[in-house]
Formats: sequence, structure tokens, C-alpha cells
Amino acid sequence: MNRDVDAIILGGGVAGYYSAKALRQGGKAVALIERDSLGGAALRWGALPVKRALDFFKEGKGSKEELFKSWEEDLKKLDGRLENEILDLGIDLYYGEGELIDAHTVKVGDKLLKGQYIIIATGTEATSIEGIPVDRERIITHREAIRLRDLPKSMVILGGNVEGVEFASLYAELGVEVTIVEMEDNLLLGYDEDLVYPVEKRLVDKGVEIIKGKAARKACVEDDKVRVLLEDGSQVQGDKALVTLLRRPNFPKGLDRLNIDTDGNKILVDENLRTGEENIFAIGDINGIMGLGNVAINQGLQVADHILNKRKVKMHYNSLPRAVFTLPEIAGIGRQEEDLKGIKYKVGYCKLKDTFRGWARDMEEGFVKVLVDEEENILGIWMVGNLVSEYIGLLSPLFNGRFTVEDIKSNLIIHPTLTEGILEALLSI
Amino acid sequence: MNRDVDAIILGGGVAGYYSAKALRQGGKAVALIERDSLGGAALRWGALPVKRALDFFKEGKGSKEELFKSWEEDLKKLDGRLENEILDLGIDLYYGEGELIDAHTVKVGDKLLKGQYIIIATGTEATSIEGIPVDRERIITHREAIRLRDLPKSMVILGGNVEGVEFASLYAELGVEVTIVEMEDNLLLGYDEDLVYPVEKRLVDKGVEIIKGKAARKACVEDDKVRVLLEDGSQVQGDKALVTLLRRPNFPKGLDRLNIDTDGNKILVDENLRTGEENIFAIGDINGIMGLGNVAINQGLQVADHILNKRKVKMHYNSLPRAVFTLPEIAGIGRQEEDLKGIKYKVGYCKLKDTFRGWARDMEEGFVKVLVDEEENILGIWMVGNLVSEYIGLLSPLFNGRFTVEDIKSNLIIHPTLTEGILEALLSI
Repeated sequence: MNRDVDAIILGGGVAGYYSAKALRQGGKAVALIERDSLGGAALRWGALPVKRALDFFKEGKGSKEELFKSWEEDLKKLDGRLENEILDLGIDLYYGEGELIDAHTVKVGDKLLKGQYIIIATGTEATSIEGIPVDRERIITHREAIRLRDLPKSMVILGGNVEGVEFASLYAELGVEVTIVEMEDNLLLGYDEDLVYPVEKRLVDKGVEIIKGKAARKACVEDDKVRVLLEDGSQVQGDKALVTLLRRPNFPKGLDRLNIDTDGNKILVDENLRTGEENIFAIGDINGIMGLGNVAINQGLQVADHILNKRKVKMHYNSLPRAVFTLPEIAGIGRQEEDLKGIKYKVGYCKLKDTFRGWARDMEEGFVKVLVDEEENILGIWMVGNLVSEYIGLLSPLFNGRFTVEDIKSNLIIHPTLTEGILEALLSI
Repeated sequence: MNRDVDAIILGGGVAGYYSAKALRQGGKAVALIERDSLGGAALRWGALPVKRALDFFKEGKGSKEELFKSWEEDLKKLDGRLENEILDLGIDLYYGEGELIDAHTVKVGDKLLKGQYIIIATGTEATSIEGIPVDRERIITHREAIRLRDLPKSMVILGGNVEGVEFASLYAELGVEVTIVEMEDNLLLGYDEDLVYPVEKRLVDKGVEIIKGKAARKACVEDDKVRVLLEDGSQVQGDKALVTLLRRPNFPKGLDRLNIDTDGNKILVDENLRTGEENIFAIGDINGIMGLGNVAINQGLQVADHILNKRKVKMHYNSLPRAVFTLPEIAGIGRQEEDLKGIKYKVGYCKLKDTFRGWARDMEEGFVKVLVDEEENILGIWMVGNLVSEYIGLLSPLFNGRFTVEDIKSNLIIHPTLTEGILEALLSI
């Protein structure tokens, strides 16, 4: 076959970025096409920058002004770093919008690239919802919200989901008057109430107004303010409104020329993340499997492995570790109480300050929660506190098979650490 | 049988303490005998207080004077906490030295206690070596060294082992002029050189003098100084000398009345930690299996489980996670390069600052090192950096069975976290 490269990757977010690197390290010739900046939502407009700013304050690194200054410098460094990694590996990098011409050809600018494989990793994008038109000035998405120099005095956040609450946490720490509007009765749907409580309490302590059980119906800009009309007729207003409610897929141009199915919101793939075209894969948010940075990274690596070594893609979504990067953080793996309706289970707790290490570090906040079934299987491990996302980090492989209380009791945890709280929580049952 | 309690436990260090609590929670009547203070070496004179002091500085909690002040208060709180936990559970607590009268009887003070089971958890104690007599004033052990109000201007630490280096790290941060004398050619024998290097570098930067490859032969007090004579005839001196070289067993009185074997340094036990008497167990440092706090805790829990549920004791010493609580910390699990002589293996590295989370947190220091064999089995995961002991915390169960590169690649790590460095280190191979 006449081709320029082995693989063409559309989109340089974390899915495409990790996939490109792994394929190149495996000896393949790779072209990576990015229309904007490498890193995508995860690294540029979402989890990472929010975390960076919260870490900055938590670790007492300096003032708001110093944060803003270092932030702009750091974004440049991030750009440089990502680009250098790609170029140093010998990956062909194209800036522009890729268009699918046929199953082996992609057009970018005035170039036609030919490849044996094509990987679509174009992601999704925050978008307007009915009645709430994003103008990127007053009614904004995470892309604008993370430009911290343009900090408003007040901000309405539409959606008390992970993105909304993470931004609320950040803006509240920065002294912005924040109002969260959440249509459900609880913030952070999908997380147990006892996990959410410390985050919500801190938000309230920082002056955040939280409106629950009411949907936003309409938003408009009047006199330099955004007014948001709620379903019960009441109104809230702020200098800006951040919309977190809806994402639309970035389908690449030319998709309709190929045998690739979508349901309008995502590209449909098989268990190996393959589209209807046998040489074309779709990874990351665009396949709609799960809109999480770590899933995107993992799919990027797995598809590369599939192409390089014919290994089947294995995804352990049951053992998905998750985190909410607020102050404090929530992190965990496995199931929560609200997933366990109809199943008999027991709950154990340990406050981090009741571990010896937590006591030694004068920790005031945070706890471990464990869920165990009647056969002593561990169903879930969840933590709230400073940096707890790190402590859950690598537990995922344990949750693939049978993982029991006995497995923890008969093994050793480093003493003294906060992770001993997991053992203590199990012993408390 | 005529008895007062189900189990009598000699020694309230972590082994006895965890064992007593687990037996009591399992419904047994328990008597705990402690001759000094609850908590033992791990909580009072070793890992925990050193860590507490280092955490204090690392987290910018205050001055030396504030540390000393809060330290005395905290020791009182620790005493109160440990005692209350024991008493609140309804465990009979006796202060005094337990003496074995027969296989079911222990004398403490003027009381005779009868029990179905006896658990010996009396630990070991730092002791003099030939030529270097501990006087607890000038030539001291960790017990005295942790009384921080008596900080000397200069200190010679005999032994560059984990205890010696942890104290050196603490004393150096406190501004004491420290000299370490280590007879081997490297500090922290049993840890790979690349793991030790950052710790050693920080010690040197803090002005610590490190003498390697020379044994200390003699120490004497002259003119308010301790002079230490080394094997090559050279001398070092300090206001105090800390001896970390040798520990002697605290055999309980009356051991010779029973069918319990020792080799002079430890009580011999079978695979269920049972002595020659079928109802008497020995746990923690006194059985000499491994002198580590987490092993002691684990043995305490396992023996309780064995008594309560007839479960066999299972100890996974191959998957022992370990840490050195210095600045920075070293922590890890599995094997190191020096354990792998004659085995083919590959090494992968990732600097913590090269993870996205590390970048976001402006981390300057620290790395992950992974060791993998030719069949892609993960042999060891080691980290150096701030608080890395927490990240290794619960990895132990993964190392019991086959644990492969594929297990990490096909699972999910929370993004962005420092623990992604483990994945990156594997990908770097």
C-alpha cells in the first residue's frame, strides 16, 4: 500500500497524545493532527489547571497575582513540553483541522496524508444549551473560565457536577462570589452524600451560594450582568455564567464519506474501539464510553498496543478509580452506597486524624470509607481529604478480581501512613 | 478451665496493642500488660515521632521551639488516646512487668492472672555494643534521642541504617551538627544507590558529615564530649552519640519455666507464630522475623484472627512494602536491583516533576523507579520524594500473585496524579 505513515491521529488531547507516543515508541511512523493546542481539555481547560491553582494555594505558594503570572508562563512551558516530546520522538505534527477523505487519507491544510491506520481522538466541546447561549464573553465554558486574569467579581456556575464543583472550589478560593445552580437535589450526583458533605461545607464556608433542585431555563446578558432564570421563576445573577451542562462531539469533517456510525453524540465503536472501518479507531471522549481523562489515556495506550501487538483492548470500567479535585479532594474506587440498592453491605469509617500518621501531621480533615459485602468482599474504598487522589492511584488492578477484607488483613501497609486508615476502616466494621 | 481472661498479652507496643484490640472486638476477655508506656518503639521512640517532627518542618508548621512545645503536649495526648482506646473497649490494662508462672498464669505486681492464651509481644531494645556503653546521658539510644528539648549542638550517629539516617535527617533539619559513622560502604544497606542518593545529598547539603566504610570501635566521654574511635585509628566527636547498631530482646521473666525455645536473640515460633507451648504465641520484634512496625501490627492482627477464627497466619513477606522516613522519603515494594543479581531485568524511571500533576505542583524532587523482568512481571516499584510512603501504601496485595506491566496498562490510574509516574516509568522501558 502506498502510504506516508503507519498511523494518522486526529486530535492531540490526552487520548491522541498518549496513543501517538506509544505507537511511535513501538516503531511506527505517526502523524498527529491538532487544530488548536496539544493537551486538550484535560491538560488545558479542565482537571489539570484547576488542580494546579488549588495546589498553589494549598501549598502556600503565593498570592493570586503570582498565580496568574506563573500560570501564563506555565501554559507556555506546557505547550513547549508537549510539542517537544512529540517532535523529539520523530512524530510528524500538523496544526490544522483534519478532514477524512477516504479510509486511508486525511487532508490537513493543503496536505494529503496517507496512513495504514487512522485514530480519531477529536474529543468533545462544551456547548450552549437551549435558552443559554454561550458567547464566550459573559456566558462562558471551561475554556474561558480557566483564563484566570479575567476573574469576575461574581460568577454563576450552571451545573453542580464534577466540573462545576471543581471550578466553584477554585473560584471560591480566589475570592469570587460564586452561585452554583444544580437541577438535582444534590451536588456531585453519583457520589455518596457523606463524601460530598465536606466539599459542600467548605464551599458554603467560603460564601458560595448553592441552589439545588432547580433547573436553569434561560440566561441573558443585561447591563453587563448575566441574569439566569430558574424553573421556578426566580433569578440569580453574576458578572459571568459558566456553563458545564452539555458537551457536543467534535466529529471530524468527512466522517459521512466513510462507513463510520454515530448516534449523533458519539462515534460507535466495537470492543476494540474500532469503527465500522476496520483500520479506523475512535478513542477518548469522542466514542462516548466515559468522558474522563484517565479513560482517554488508557484507550490511547490500549489502541496503540492493539495495533502494535494485536492485543485485545481490555478496559476495566468496574474498577474505575475516580476523583473530584476540590478542597478537600474526593477520590475512590469501586462502588458507592448509592450503587448498592438491594445489596446487603456494611460500611466502615476511619478519620484520617485517627491514623497515627494523620495524628502526627495534625490533620484535621478527611476520612476513609469502605464498603464490604456479606462475603467480606471489598466493594468500594473512598477517601476525602488533602491529596487523597494519590492514595487511590494504583488500586485499580485489585478490583478486577475478588478482593477481600482478608487480602488487606494478611498484607502489609507501610506504617505509619494515612493509607493505614483503609485497614482501620475495615477493622471498624 | 479456671481462668480470669481469654488472652493475656505481654507488651503494649503496636503488636500487642493491635492484637489486644482485635481479640476484644472479637468478643474475648483480654488483659494487656505494659511495663512502661503504650505504643512501644514504633509510636514513641522511632518512626512516628521522627516523622511527626519532619512533617512539622516540611509543612511549615512553625519554629523549633513550637515543635518542642507541641511535642510534649502531643506525647501526653498520645498516651491518653492509646490508654482510652484500650479501656473503652473493656480491656484490663496492667502497668508493670509480667512474669510467666506457668503456661496459663502471668504475675504482674502482686496479681496472678490466668488466661487461656498468652501472647508475648515484649519487643526489643537498643543496647550497648562492645566498647560503646550506653549511659543514656551522653551515649544514647533512640529513646533519649527523641527527647527533643535536650538537643545537643553536635551528635555522632553510629550506624547509617534506617534508624540512623532517619535521626540524622531530623537532627540536620533541626540545625544539629551531625556525623554519621557507617561501617559499610553505603548508607541504608539494602536500598539501591539511586534511591539513597537524594537522601544522602540532602544530608550533605545540610552539613552532615558521612563517614563510610569504617566501624566504630570505642566510645568514651571526656570533657563533656563523646569521643568515638574508628577502626582506622581516626576519631570523631560530638556532644552526644546515638547508638543504633544493636538491639537485644526483652525476654519476659519466667520464660525458662516453660517449653519455649529461644536462640538467645529471639523466641522461636512456628508458621502460626506459636511457641513450643501450644497456647502461647510470640509476635512483633521479639520473634525476630522482621523488626518493622507494620510487620508487628500485621502479626498482632493475624494472631488474633488465628485465635478467634482458627485462620492460619498468612504473611506475605515477599510483598513487604518499606519506607525510610527521611527528607525526601524513600518508599517501595518488591525487589531492588541489588536483590536481582543473576536475573535479567529492565529498569524504568519517571521524575515526579514529569508527571502532569507533579508539573502542576512545581515539584522539584523525586522519581519513580520500576523493575521488570523479561516476561513483563513487575518485580519492584520504588519511589523517592515527599510523602511517597503514602503512594505505596496499599500495593502489597498486588505483589502476592503475578503482577505484570499489562495489569497496569489495562487498568486506570487517577489522572492527574503523581502515581501516573508508575505508568510513565513502565512506558519508559
